[in-house]
Amino acid sequence: MTPSELKEYLKQRKEIVDAELLLRLPKLPPELSILEEAMAHSLMAGGKRLRPILCMAGAELMGAEPESVLPTACALEFIHTYSLIHDDLPAMDDDDLRRGVPTCHVKYGEAAALLAGDGLLTEAFDIIADQARTHDPGTVLKAASMIARASGVWGMVGGQVADMRAEGLTGLQAGDIEFIHALKTGALITVSLASGALLAGAGEEELAAVEGFGKKIGAAFQIADDLLDIEGDTETLGKPVGSDQAQGKATYPSAVGLEAARSKAKDLINEGLEALKSFGREAEPLRVLAVYIINRSK
Amino acid sequence: MTPSELKEYLKQRKEIVDAELLLRLPKLPPELSILEEAMAHSLMAGGKRLRPILCMAGAELMGAEPESVLPTACALEFIHTYSLIHDDLPAMDDDDLRRGVPTCHVKYGEAAALLAGDGLLTEAFDIIADQARTHDPGTVLKAASMIARASGVWGMVGGQVADMRAEGLTGLQAGDIEFIHALKTGALITVSLASGALLAGAGEEELAAVEGFGKKIGAAFQIADDLLDIEGDTETLGKPVGSDQAQGKATYPSAVGLEAARSKAKDLINEGLEALKSFGREAEPLRVLAVYIINRSK
Repeated sequence: MTPSELKEYLKQRKEIVDAELLLRLPKLPPELSILEEAMAHSLMAGGKRLRPILCMAGAELMGAEPESVLPTACALEFIHTYSLIHDDLPAMDDDDLRRGVPTCHVKYGEAAALLAGDGLLTEAFDIIADQARTHDPGTVLKAASMIARASGVWGMVGGQVADMRAEGLTGLQAGDIEFIHALKTGALITVSLASGALLAGAGEEELAAVEGFGKKIGAAFQIADDLLDIEGDTETLGKPVGSDQAQGKATYPSAVGLEAARSKAKDLINEGLEALKSFGREAEPLRVLAVYIINRSK
Repeated sequence: MTPSELKEYLKQRKEIVDAELLLRLPKLPPELSILEEAMAHSLMAGGKRLRPILCMAGAELMGAEPESVLPTACALEFIHTYSLIHDDLPAMDDDDLRRGVPTCHVKYGEAAALLAGDGLLTEAFDIIADQARTHDPGTVLKAASMIARASGVWGMVGGQVADMRAEGLTGLQAGDIEFIHALKTGALITVSLASGALLAGAGEEELAAVEGFGKKIGAAFQIADDLLDIEGDTETLGKPVGSDQAQGKATYPSAVGLEAARSKAKDLINEGLEALKSFGREAEPLRVLAVYIINRSK
């Protein structure tokens, strides 16, 4: 898969996901129009749709049609979007700009944003349940449980708390930051791949390989994100450059330096590729995606 | 069942629920202690455990052991507690006192409270998935879907938005308030009963009867709550008397007057009892509970 083929692959997958997200957005009665609009605003504001694309790639890896796991893929984007809305709230990061547009609370007010996030998170689990129209209910429940763990206190929510606790602390070690990132972004990225593979019939060994890959590229993704925050420009980022630093965020580059962070990201990608070595051509999109992750700023 | 037998029934069921909630509370690593404490603070601050008790009563109604649906019962209390934490936040009702203790954000800060709520909601779906250890996964998924719909934009979250929108509006009709309450509190109360009954094998007709009962007593419960806010005392309420009025909340008594509200609550209870008429002695706890709901202030 060449870089331009990857670009086309990502574009096509994003289109499939965007269309399905639009269908999955609840169409609410007029009394609740602010809720519908607030959810739509954040859900449809763009974004790479990385998590849904990884979920579909996980299914593809096991020989299934990528579209077969679309409900779960969309649920993952609902969860990711809820987390962005809540993160941006004044009580959290207090960000005004996200994906190049005003954040949900700036446009709709804090209360509506809080509830839009709650609504997206809750709706995600109803969408996952819908996956049972085509898949074994026991497997769907297992996927739902994995996704809940990766999103909640054992994953993303826990990572937010750890991140918050680390803010302003000095002398954070690389290991502290790895712990935070593994929960905050790594868990959801990993479960995106793993849930797709599980639904497509992955056994324990295959699931372990996929999770191994997911953890490595998840960590690399976060480091790349932190590097982008330092090296990127506002247009690429859709948010002000240097906002992590301004907020005293625990980032990998701030703990070990730019060069060491770049090198760590590359190592992680190589370790991720190693985890996929038992797979053949069916893992090609994942291998190319892995490399894309650390190059996406360029 | 006499009033004192009901009191004993509620006490015993509450003890069973409290013990299980404590077991289900995630035991997190030390880095996340503030999250564990904030969740525990709100979850274990007391409360009647009405929703778990209704879930168990729903199972009992279908001849199952009440303890057989304990995971789902606890998940419902996790969801109810998350909604209280988010409701109390400054961006929402800005309440300092709940169940007689400082609200979550007053004690742990806004960010931790927001995340504790997110964590409880997400964990709830992992707990529901656990119900598949003893129950058919397809039925568990159906229960999870029902609960998600009743908690999210089609239920509780939607009700919050409708309530927020109505705040400060004048000339609200009884019907407007019924719509808000049906979503805001009715849906979760109804699904508590219905999910318990469904897991215990209820068919479509039985489920419809249980839901009919749930909707009526849910509406009566909210009116009783609004009456308590006007007529009760701070000790019984665990929050300041008259706080709804002070916040310009849409309440049934404020739309139709105290007497008409009292009478409406009684009518709803009678309609609820009518919905249960095809059941025999196994519905006795529900019948007594229904009457208790409008008398609990006394």
